Amino acid sequence: MNAHSLQIAITTGEPAGVGPELTVQALAHGLGEPAAQPRWPGVHFVVLGDRGLLEERAARVGIDLQPLLASGAVGIEHHPLGRPAQAGTLDPANGRYVLDLLDTAIDGALDGRFAALVTAPLQKSTINDAGVPFTGHTEYLAERTGTPRVVMMLAGSGEHPLRVALATTHLPLKDVSAALTIDGLVETLTIIDRDLRASFGREAPAILVTGLNPHAGENGYLGREEIDVISPALERVRAAGIDARGPYPADTLFQPRYLRDADCVLAMFHDQGLPVLKYATFGEGINVTLGLPIVRTSVDHGTALDLAGTGRADCGSLIAAIDAAVSMARHRSHCA
Amino acid sequence: MNAHSLQIAITTGEPAGVGPELTVQALAHGLGEPAAQPRWPGVHFVVLGDRGLLEERAARVGIDLQPLLASGAVGIEHHPLGRPAQAGTLDPANGRYVLDLLDTAIDGALDGRFAALVTAPLQKSTINDAGVPFTGHTEYLAERTGTPRVVMMLAGSGEHPLRVALATTHLPLKDVSAALTIDGLVETLTIIDRDLRASFGREAPAILVTGLNPHAGENGYLGREEIDVISPALERVRAAGIDARGPYPADTLFQPRYLRDADCVLAMFHDQGLPVLKYATFGEGINVTLGLPIVRTSVDHGTALDLAGTGRADCGSLIAAIDAAVSMARHRSHCA
Repeated sequence: MNAHSLQIAITTGEPAGVGPELTVQALAHGLGEPAAQPRWPGVHFVVLGDRGLLEERAARVGIDLQPLLASGAVGIEHHPLGRPAQAGTLDPANGRYVLDLLDTAIDGALDGRFAALVTAPLQKSTINDAGVPFTGHTEYLAERTGTPRVVMMLAGSGEHPLRVALATTHLPLKDVSAALTIDGLVETLTIIDRDLRASFGREAPAILVTGLNPHAGENGYLGREEIDVISPALERVRAAGIDARGPYPADTLFQPRYLRDADCVLAMFHDQGLPVLKYATFGEGINVTLGLPIVRTSVDHGTALDLAGTGRADCGSLIAAIDAAVSMARHRSHCA
Repeated sequence: MNAHSLQIAITTGEPAGVGPELTVQALAHGLGEPAAQPRWPGVHFVVLGDRGLLEERAARVGIDLQPLLASGAVGIEHHPLGRPAQAGTLDPANGRYVLDLLDTAIDGALDGRFAALVTAPLQKSTINDAGVPFTGHTEYLAERTGTPRVVMMLAGSGEHPLRVALATTHLPLKDVSAALTIDGLVETLTIIDRDLRASFGREAPAILVTGLNPHAGENGYLGREEIDVISPALERVRAAGIDARGPYPADTLFQPRYLRDADCVLAMFHDQGLPVLKYATFGEGINVTLGLPIVRTSVDHGTALDLAGTGRADCGSLIAAIDAAVSMARHRSHCA
């Protein structure tokens, strides 16, 4: 490991799920590429998890860990399970273990040991059943890093990926309208603009903003939030130099002729933006938390308990999440 | 025209928009295919509109109407404009004209003269500004045919197209939750099932139903409509022999592994289902009104006033709408 290398933490997540095997599969895939064109040059990965669990799952899916460890690109930082984990069977005795991995990664990112963290999926109920209130990775990261507002963004991969950020996330649909405020949208757009510059290298990011209502409200005939909330927020951020456009009807916005000039779409709520994002990214979508003082990316899927231990889960999303973490960490270190 | 032929009406819609030119372009394209493999064999199209307008727009986009008319496959039924139409410029003096085309097509479909009607886009404001209350094609068709409930469905083309029906349509988002009822969903699902059988030839249609809330409510943590409204409706229609499944999280439902076994997705609201449908169909989506006593299909786009007269609008959606009308009319006549 030379002085220019990046150290990135991977939390292997719920031990009964696919996280442990996807981690070793993704690393074996990415590090198995031709040495002349390394996928992640100069990156050292610290895999956080129980060593025995990782060895067992690697063996079940036919991955040999030794070359990975011998290459120097991967190290396992052992954290012991509360109880041996069975693939597919949740056990609250391992709730503290899952949180321990996450806390280690966050602390290491905050103190500069890790340039980014990549999180495999966890199961909220395992942590809750261990007696710890926990509503999700994103909320936990915000709280642990003292960040008052974060923004969830999902993205595809490639040269010009589709990126969809959300103005609201895990709320009942009937509460969405009341949750939208001018100040909140201004903060959200400011975070998106800042992070697209700092972590994605976009010099003047263009953000396309959806309306809340069908056809963006049709000039008030189908709802007034576009007039009363969204447009005033757009005016405020534009005055601050942010290229935020809209509000546009969500049903016609996701077309190549609009998207080709855009760096990100801001959707007003979960099911307005994510069905099309997940359709477009074909299982290779990733989840990025914007607004944090650290870089964090994640897969866009769950623990897939039914597939754990089978090797049949697709590691494409985790590979894409690692790619994004490496790229974001490089941009941040250059821009810092 | 022999006894087995189908007669289909095409309303050319707003005269300032792209409807007139798209109609002649679509017909020239479809009827220009090799005679050995005709696209619409045995179909006679009745184009409803002002003859002079159609000739003028055809000339502007480089289409010769004479071969179409001489082939016997196309006839123009002349309805005079209120005032000569300028491409791109709305004129309330033509509001009654647009309605006249639609009324003629509906009456002809109801009395058996037309096996289907295909509608080019109209501009609601032209009709409203002519002093006639009008909220949209779909609502007008329901009222004129005495149909208490219709269902809007958008679809792609091809062998196994994506089809998305909507439980609610043009409502402010904050009113969607209150608009969902068990009885309403039962009626909607019953209409979808019946029309997929009668007009699409599906023998036991599988309908995938979304939840209303993110992650389909997560067992009530993110909203209760799935438990209180959607699931009871699904139980009722399943007891009546309808293969309706769900409720599923909308963000993960639109994946090939789920869609391949489905004939239709029922989304709870406009922006939950249509962004992904329009993304997936790339400008070749169509709009079908289910539940009517007649067959009606339409393009999935608007009047595109800025493109009218230029020939640059894409007639792909109108061709697909004609394809669907022909197919649906054939299924209905066989099944009747």
